Amino acid sequence: MTKVVIFGTGNLATHLYKAFLNAQQVEVAAIWGRSTPSKAQFGQAGMRTSSLSKIPEAAVYLICITDDAVSGFSRQLSQEAFVVHTSGALGLDVLTQARRGIFWPIQTFTKSKEVSINGVPICIEATNPKDVSTLKKLAKAIKAKPTEVNSAQRAYLHVAAVFVNNFVNQLYSSAHDLLESQKLSFDLLKALILETANKGVNASPKSIQTGPAKRGDKSVMKSHKSLLNKEQQKLYVTLSEAIYKTHNNNEL
Amino acid sequence: MTKVVIFGTGNLATHLYKAFLNAQQVEVAAIWGRSTPSKAQFGQAGMRTSSLSKIPEAAVYLICITDDAVSGFSRQLSQEAFVVHTSGALGLDVLTQARRGIFWPIQTFTKSKEVSINGVPICIEATNPKDVSTLKKLAKAIKAKPTEVNSAQRAYLHVAAVFVNNFVNQLYSSAHDLLESQKLSFDLLKALILETANKGVNASPKSIQTGPAKRGDKSVMKSHKSLLNKEQQKLYVTLSEAIYKTHNNNEL
Repeated sequence: MTKVVIFGTGNLATHLYKAFLNAQQVEVAAIWGRSTPSKAQFGQAGMRTSSLSKIPEAAVYLICITDDAVSGFSRQLSQEAFVVHTSGALGLDVLTQARRGIFWPIQTFTKSKEVSINGVPICIEATNPKDVSTLKKLAKAIKAKPTEVNSAQRAYLHVAAVFVNNFVNQLYSSAHDLLESQKLSFDLLKALILETANKGVNASPKSIQTGPAKRGDKSVMKSHKSLLNKEQQKLYVTLSEAIYKTHNNNEL
Repeated sequence: MTKVVIFGTGNLATHLYKAFLNAQQVEVAAIWGRSTPSKAQFGQAGMRTSSLSKIPEAAVYLICITDDAVSGFSRQLSQEAFVVHTSGALGLDVLTQARRGIFWPIQTFTKSKEVSINGVPICIEATNPKDVSTLKKLAKAIKAKPTEVNSAQRAYLHVAAVFVNNFVNQLYSSAHDLLESQKLSFDLLKALILETANKGVNASPKSIQTGPAKRGDKSVMKSHKSLLNKEQQKLYVTLSEAIYKTHNNNEL
């Protein structure tokens, strides 16, 4: 049985808490929040508290709070504990404990939505090889895919995640605005968005690219641009140039 | 029973052919290809031919060939027939027939992959109101969602489709390159890509945006940029600026 304390009550904390409850080999010894975590949401934790002095001993102290606050928070915890953060953007060195680690699920979580952690890769790093094993066991217990990566690899993974999550979502948002301007429902793009994602993960994305930018079809691109505002045009031009260059080894 | 002739043997032609075969109210009277369409692939069509002079009469002549060739092709068909193209990029006026129409499924098709047309929106336009009805019936017969749009709306839909398909796929491709450079599998992003798409279609994409660009977190953005080549940096900066501006009404 691996005893875990979760610090935080946000999206990731909530999803990990639920996953740990369903795992037979894991016990949530306590959940900490700036104000005491609600019984309704976290009632099955061994302890719910807002006081760091009451935190029980545990094999893993898991920090699930906002990136900016992690470093200061780690200083307030026992320096003898095994303290782990869950951020893709932060290095190991933001933690002050000698035994420190990273447990970063490469997934986007929404509080109000069930997102399965089943099969989700979790990037694992720790100063101590035994602690690496503990984190791997923890990931396996919730049926996630532990993946040991070093800090350099994690940095690349994090920026790649920004490309396929934040940046892709911004393109969805632009498309949403374009349709809204014509009183068209965003639902019209639903099938295309889902199939684009499905195709992308099951092939090399480069090999399945299509469209006017790949062909360098200037007349279609010109008529597209005429429909866009200045901000949308910037995106259109930059992405089209990137596509053309990728496939034609040449400037558009 | 609606008799249809399909011109073309590519991705879209293949998917529509299969969908029409499964629809009780539709008969594929003929399929035409530059060379005679293969029996293995199109054996259940009433006729397989490469000769335009042999094309039988039908209620709908459906052109599923590459955009550039549509206009010239339409001139070779009977000027009395109801001729329809299937492109999102082309207007009605590329067709020379008096009775002309558009039947554009907003989906990306891959020849080797089963893609359900079930529930896919099909944009419909025609010069003649009765022909609009025929195209709607055709879409319903294959369980797609007919959506009557005018040419202006279709133009916006097409550029929006480029954003969520071509441009999104280019971001997948960049992420793929970033991971490859670190000998990391693109599979690590699979769960994130699929969930990002799922979230995007079930919410307003703007309302669920997260990440360093939205927060204007310059230190994370700077360290991200240091990992990227010149082309990737261009995408990173343009997308980050767009996200920041969308959420902060201000330049980054």
